Amino acid sequence: MSALSSMAAAVPAAGEAPGRGAGAGGDGAELFAWARELVTPALRRAVEDLPAPQREIVGYHRGWHGVAGPAARGGGKAVRPALVFLSAMAVGAPPESVIPGAVAVELVHDFSLLHDDVIDADPLRRHRPAAWARYGTPAAVLTGDALLVRALAVLAADARPYSAPATGELSRMLEDLLRGQSQDVAFESTARVRPEEYLEMAAGKTGALMACACALGALLAGASEARTAGLRDFGCHLGIAFQCADDLLGIWGTTRRSGEPVGADVAARKKSLPVAVALADPGPAGRRLAGLYDRTEPLSATDVATATELIEQAGGREATEREAGPTPGGGSVAGDRSR
Amino acid sequence: MSALSSMAAAVPAAGEAPGRGAGAGGDGAELFAWARELVTPALRRAVEDLPAPQREIVGYHRGWHGVAGPAARGGGKAVRPALVFLSAMAVGAPPESVIPGAVAVELVHDFSLLHDDVIDADPLRRHRPAAWARYGTPAAVLTGDALLVRALAVLAADARPYSAPATGELSRMLEDLLRGQSQDVAFESTARVRPEEYLEMAAGKTGALMACACALGALLAGASEARTAGLRDFGCHLGIAFQCADDLLGIWGTTRRSGEPVGADVAARKKSLPVAVALADPGPAGRRLAGLYDRTEPLSATDVATATELIEQAGGREATEREAGPTPGGGSVAGDRSR
Repeated sequence: MSALSSMAAAVPAAGEAPGRGAGAGGDGAELFAWARELVTPALRRAVEDLPAPQREIVGYHRGWHGVAGPAARGGGKAVRPALVFLSAMAVGAPPESVIPGAVAVELVHDFSLLHDDVIDADPLRRHRPAAWARYGTPAAVLTGDALLVRALAVLAADARPYSAPATGELSRMLEDLLRGQSQDVAFESTARVRPEEYLEMAAGKTGALMACACALGALLAGASEARTAGLRDFGCHLGIAFQCADDLLGIWGTTRRSGEPVGADVAARKKSLPVAVALADPGPAGRRLAGLYDRTEPLSATDVATATELIEQAGGREATEREAGPTPGGGSVAGDRSR
Repeated sequence: MSALSSMAAAVPAAGEAPGRGAGAGGDGAELFAWARELVTPALRRAVEDLPAPQREIVGYHRGWHGVAGPAARGGGKAVRPALVFLSAMAVGAPPESVIPGAVAVELVHDFSLLHDDVIDADPLRRHRPAAWARYGTPAAVLTGDALLVRALAVLAADARPYSAPATGELSRMLEDLLRGQSQDVAFESTARVRPEEYLEMAAGKTGALMACACALGALLAGASEARTAGLRDFGCHLGIAFQCADDLLGIWGTTRRSGEPVGADVAARKKSLPVAVALADPGPAGRRLAGLYDRTEPLSATDVATATELIEQAGGREATEREAGPTPGGGSVAGDRSR
């Protein structure tokens, strides 16, 4: 999360009101704790009049009740609300003035997690049973719908006088997000995913919401279209980098946010960026990896270790680290998807 | 559908441009065919750039391809687009000028059908396997999401200069629609549903979208807030009447749109309005019906016939016919829910 931290560090220079951002300096953990504290009261208010079963699911999903252990921090890292606040501060506005934007992006994030877990039949989320696994698919679908609609309602009702451009921003983001999600689903039945296809998917599935978070922070602060567009671009690149970092953790990480074992992405033959890059490599490592990935039987622990080594030899790790780094590759397709 | 036909008949008197509404007069079937013809090209354009799997599901769901028999008319009756067009005409505008509104409400209607069938695990829709039964739950959920988001995008992008009030109208409607859907789900695990609770649910689940259709038709035609509000109220009452008519068909109808056998609602102990009214009756018919409904074993064909008779004796049919009729009951709770 060095990109976020450097954004936070840059904020005072960009005209932040003195004293306002005391909590926003320092490292990533402090920044996220600050953003979470700032958004949570409004987020709770935004869902308090949902029907009781949906309120219960939101509270469970976000870790607001009945949680001990790693999930107890409450609903993830608040990365997207942090981006909304920092964008507002970057254009000289107090973060308190853009709270509806922070609430809206976090509601959309939760919508996408609830539906993604149904769509991917993923049984775990934040170290606990996913909402659908605990409350059933119908309840998870309906709660996701309710959060999406509430995000729209928050911007339509609470983001005056910027409701119209803000809901337009939300609308375009949701189209990109769903297109990315759809591409991700399609990858499951595709033998080979090209690196540029993967980056296009990541620009939608992960980049669009972060781009929207940055754009909303600027827009609701009354920034010019040019500055809003610049921050939107930044958010999209950050989202792609974020996805690449997640892909690296999925293969070489020692712990995983969702609690899966290390190497799970390889065992599941997940087509993440390191794998896409390695399979596109015409050399011997790429060809040997393709042989392993094209077999129909499950991969043994030895196969997983071999495949992990081959992905690295074929350049998958290095290329992904480059995408995840602070300087986006000049020739990357990400540059074309940064709306 | 006498209320719709009389609305259509009233249109010329309300200042409709001569020659415009030739297709809108006559009986309900002609009216719906006219509305369907007017909305379909724009509706097809609105979904043509969805990802291929979702386009396929929309085409299947709407009966645009591979369909013979009763479903071949293509995606239901276009009741909601008809309301958008007629509302515009009622305030003196050509129906062609409000096409984005008609597209948006029909997209929301399809979203709600796709997700409702998942939520209710309903295997049939329009005489054929429901989308989830044919393409799987993940694809049906994702396609529903895409249609909801596209509805918002159509209003945000194509409904200028009325984008802001139109997306606000959409947002409030979606909140009511989802609240109604949530109440309907809750009824499944409730022993007794009071008639006023049922009508509140119907005002959300069926009334909200019809209210929105009427309001959008007026709003996009530039009507005053007062006229828009009047048409919104009309749409909500019509939606409740529509739901009541459907409930009557579910018990006493000779054919059903979805192809279930007559009496299916009683066999399934569905808590529709006639049943809610009858179970609230303190007389002998109500008490005998309660005895049948509270048994845990399935109802035999004789039980279903007896229950049907008891529902009528306890006043369930008459009260529902009154709600479904052209004059809403003065003391009905529907009067409080007509936003």
